[in-house]
Amino acid sequence: MLHILHIGFGEIGRDVVKAILQRPAAATLCGIVDPHPNLAGKNLRDLLGNPSAPALVVQPTLAQALAEGPKPDVAIVTTGSRLPSVRATFAELAASGISSVSSCEELAFPQLRHPALAQELDALAKAKGVAILGTGVNPGFAMDALALGVSAVCSQVTSVRCVRSLDAGKRRPQLQKKVAAGMTPAEFQQGLAAKKLGHVGLAESAALLAAGFGWTLDHIDEKFEPVYATERINAPLFDIQPGQVRGMRMTAMGLRDGRTLVELDLTMAFAAETFDQIEIRANPSITVRALTGLPGDQSTIGLLVNCAQAIDRLPPGLRTMLDLMPVRALGTV
Amino acid sequence: MLHILHIGFGEIGRDVVKAILQRPAAATLCGIVDPHPNLAGKNLRDLLGNPSAPALVVQPTLAQALAEGPKPDVAIVTTGSRLPSVRATFAELAASGISSVSSCEELAFPQLRHPALAQELDALAKAKGVAILGTGVNPGFAMDALALGVSAVCSQVTSVRCVRSLDAGKRRPQLQKKVAAGMTPAEFQQGLAAKKLGHVGLAESAALLAAGFGWTLDHIDEKFEPVYATERINAPLFDIQPGQVRGMRMTAMGLRDGRTLVELDLTMAFAAETFDQIEIRANPSITVRALTGLPGDQSTIGLLVNCAQAIDRLPPGLRTMLDLMPVRALGTV
Repeated sequence: MLHILHIGFGEIGRDVVKAILQRPAAATLCGIVDPHPNLAGKNLRDLLGNPSAPALVVQPTLAQALAEGPKPDVAIVTTGSRLPSVRATFAELAASGISSVSSCEELAFPQLRHPALAQELDALAKAKGVAILGTGVNPGFAMDALALGVSAVCSQVTSVRCVRSLDAGKRRPQLQKKVAAGMTPAEFQQGLAAKKLGHVGLAESAALLAAGFGWTLDHIDEKFEPVYATERINAPLFDIQPGQVRGMRMTAMGLRDGRTLVELDLTMAFAAETFDQIEIRANPSITVRALTGLPGDQSTIGLLVNCAQAIDRLPPGLRTMLDLMPVRALGTV
Repeated sequence: MLHILHIGFGEIGRDVVKAILQRPAAATLCGIVDPHPNLAGKNLRDLLGNPSAPALVVQPTLAQALAEGPKPDVAIVTTGSRLPSVRATFAELAASGISSVSSCEELAFPQLRHPALAQELDALAKAKGVAILGTGVNPGFAMDALALGVSAVCSQVTSVRCVRSLDAGKRRPQLQKKVAAGMTPAEFQQGLAAKKLGHVGLAESAALLAAGFGWTLDHIDEKFEPVYATERINAPLFDIQPGQVRGMRMTAMGLRDGRTLVELDLTMAFAAETFDQIEIRANPSITVRALTGLPGDQSTIGLLVNCAQAIDRLPPGLRTMLDLMPVRALGTV
């Protein structure tokens, strides 16, 4: 039986908590932390509108959750995308001897943007005998770990391409805003300059793939471009006119000696097709397509809980999905 | 650097050896064993027609290989499909402190047909601190481990279906014979009764999937049926007339309380479409299709070498692909 603490009771966090409660034979939810005044002090039964949920009270801090409840084996953390904003939480958990699994996008490959911070967390985790892991559908699976897993059948990978496309109209309002839905071309350029648009994690996926195949990249070239509506799209929260932005296309190319070893192509737009595709150029070359796509939020929730369930398979330290997908091909160099 | 010994220099073994030689930075081939009089005593350079291959001589026995060469970390064993016929090899390797990775189909889930033998090998492997693992494209990946790996994004799996279809005309003559190509309906029934036809491993895949999702099956229902040609198929080794057998369709259903939890559907026939598809009914339901298929022999070779490369991630004992795919969903019960 795995004892799980959950930190961050937002939209994703709420569904993580429900997913934990759906596997009573394997996991016990032993606490919830969220300092938000609408949540702290509230009873889980009321928050979920489910009288058969455990009578847990959301605690405002980790210290209070640990004082109130049993010691968890692992905490699932769904609070932020950027590592510096979640760092203190991982450090506090590690100091308390608790492993972390988090959807923090930059934690999928923390060495990329925060090498010093990664080193600090790795040393702390090792000293305390806990693991810290970043996961989620993207980064963490659809455009990285799944390709590494599929490559188990391959020899001599020469390059990999992952394409993810999703209909933003079917996603949370938060994501719909993030992809610039309804903006004019000028507004898009402003939002891009202000770094208010786009998706965190494409470069992390590229770095994870390269590390998995044993490639040292010279650099990762990220691009963001708008996708314009050619006809009106009338959705609940957005009435997108022709010529306005219906979403974004983001690419990340991992290059070495002028060769593109990793190519990632992510479209999140209203009225876009929904699928994931992985193309591995190797012996044999393999193309795998998720015909259903890998639905964003639900897949992230599954990964968080399934990785928490596998936490004892990870040696102490700051870990990545590479440690949980040990069978993969080697890349050629 | 991993030191690999190879046992069994047949068609697959030869390509395994080539794949090992293609990754000189990661692995060293330190010996080859095959007692066949056409092979034992021969030099690898001559056998491969490759003067830059290592000047290794094929040894007739494991004992002689160990006397001649350095101690390997792991042996890749490609000698037989049935566990009783390969058992002595695994035992001898374990006794010498060497882990095994093998394409022996029954080793993919040895507990299914040989529980006593599995227990004996497990105890021996644990006593000697080595791992023994069965892998390959099928069983071992296409219809089991890949589905478990994809399920990492799912919660509450209610059932799983894996469909594999391949054009036998593009495979080795050995496989073409195994699928009854060119037989009359009467010959097919005779071959089936004599157990000379079909594929070892579908039930193993069903058992592996069930174990992965935490399901105890009441039983596994295996069926074999011929696929008849409706028009002439003129292939190099077979001239198949309308009404003759062009291949086989095999199914395995894993049942519990009358519910089908696992459904496997394998077609190996001349002029069949080539693809693999995995359908997971869960939250979310996911359908993934390998548009290229997962080519049989090449994929098995990749898996053997890639699993050998991951052997230090396995604790001692008789292991399965479940141990190398730790992130997966739980099934509902």
